Amino acid sequence: MTITIHGLARSRAIRNIWASEELGLAYIHNPLPHGPEGSRKPEFLAINPNGRVPAVEVDGMVLWESLAINLFLAKKAGGPLAPESVEEDGLMTMWTMWAVTEVEAAALALLQNETMKPEDQRDAAVAAKSRETLKVPLSVLEGHLASHGGHLVGNRFTIADLNVASCVFYLRYSPILDDKPAVKAWYQAAMARPAARKTFALRGD
Amino acid sequence: MTITIHGLARSRAIRNIWASEELGLAYIHNPLPHGPEGSRKPEFLAINPNGRVPAVEVDGMVLWESLAINLFLAKKAGGPLAPESVEEDGLMTMWTMWAVTEVEAAALALLQNETMKPEDQRDAAVAAKSRETLKVPLSVLEGHLASHGGHLVGNRFTIADLNVASCVFYLRYSPILDDKPAVKAWYQAAMARPAARKTFALRGD
Repeated sequence: MTITIHGLARSRAIRNIWASEELGLAYIHNPLPHGPEGSRKPEFLAINPNGRVPAVEVDGMVLWESLAINLFLAKKAGGPLAPESVEEDGLMTMWTMWAVTEVEAAALALLQNETMKPEDQRDAAVAAKSRETLKVPLSVLEGHLASHGGHLVGNRFTIADLNVASCVFYLRYSPILDDKPAVKAWYQAAMARPAARKTFALRGD
Repeated sequence: MTITIHGLARSRAIRNIWASEELGLAYIHNPLPHGPEGSRKPEFLAINPNGRVPAVEVDGMVLWESLAINLFLAKKAGGPLAPESVEEDGLMTMWTMWAVTEVEAAALALLQNETMKPEDQRDAAVAAKSRETLKVPLSVLEGHLASHGGHLVGNRFTIADLNVASCVFYLRYSPILDDKPAVKAWYQAAMARPAARKTFALRGD
């Protein structure tokens, strides 16, 4: 398999790098920036007309959508991160979709308005709304992990854990996880994996 | 397979009803409303702790996230709507995820602020922003359909078309598709399918 991952390590491309490292897949990393000189330049629009990173080329096939790419890579590579059955595939896809619809946007908004932006540019109302939005999803995640041995699907670390942890990553500086011990332990265990440490070191932060 | 679909026909449950009809799967429909007397009542929270519809039970396994459920149902049932290979699976999952991240929220906001809300409650700025957000995705969809024989994956109607059309459904009253002939033809063909006609008649609108 020849894999090229387009996008900076500080973009969502990090998710595909992490998955490739976990799966033992060799890849070429093209650290393409966002914007007119990068993800929206004509040569790249021919690869991903959405003008977004990441895009991943696998043996000539182009895929977008970082978390969908990870589900594909896991199934293509096989092994413990991949689903063992159509049922596990369904649950891994469900958790991945859930992370996008219930967690990602609010977690990113919270990161920006609680931590990342200069203090005078933070919007306290957006932060508060994001905390409110995350209340149910984080309780659902806490309850599931606490009652399923600390993993999302199949009692082992899978691509579902990797995908959801990639979104919970936006909450890494937030006190919002302080009363979620199972989420915190699960997230820290995911990030302590050798492939995760190697990958996230590429961000340089 | 014993399938129970929870959620009103006017909710996203319609997507799972449509998929089941296309796949020839028998199902029980539980038209559970939103809110404290429905999707957030304790008996239902035991099924879906997110308190949302749809949730679908398949032989005792519970799944949430309407479009992930459809990918599962197609793979479980097999046939022409399902992926024929890991590659097709990857592309169908990609298009499904793309519809959620690039189309769904903006299309719904446009529907509400262009058509559904009483005129004096519509927010023209939200409608304008939604149109702007949809510009690139609808061009991407138009370009892909025009150059791929009117289908998203594999030169045939698949669960990817069904999932993406389920989101484009929110644009059904909007002039935004007027300059997108391939999208319009693809959407109308999807909605003209016998299973779609039977399904959407359940909405009663």
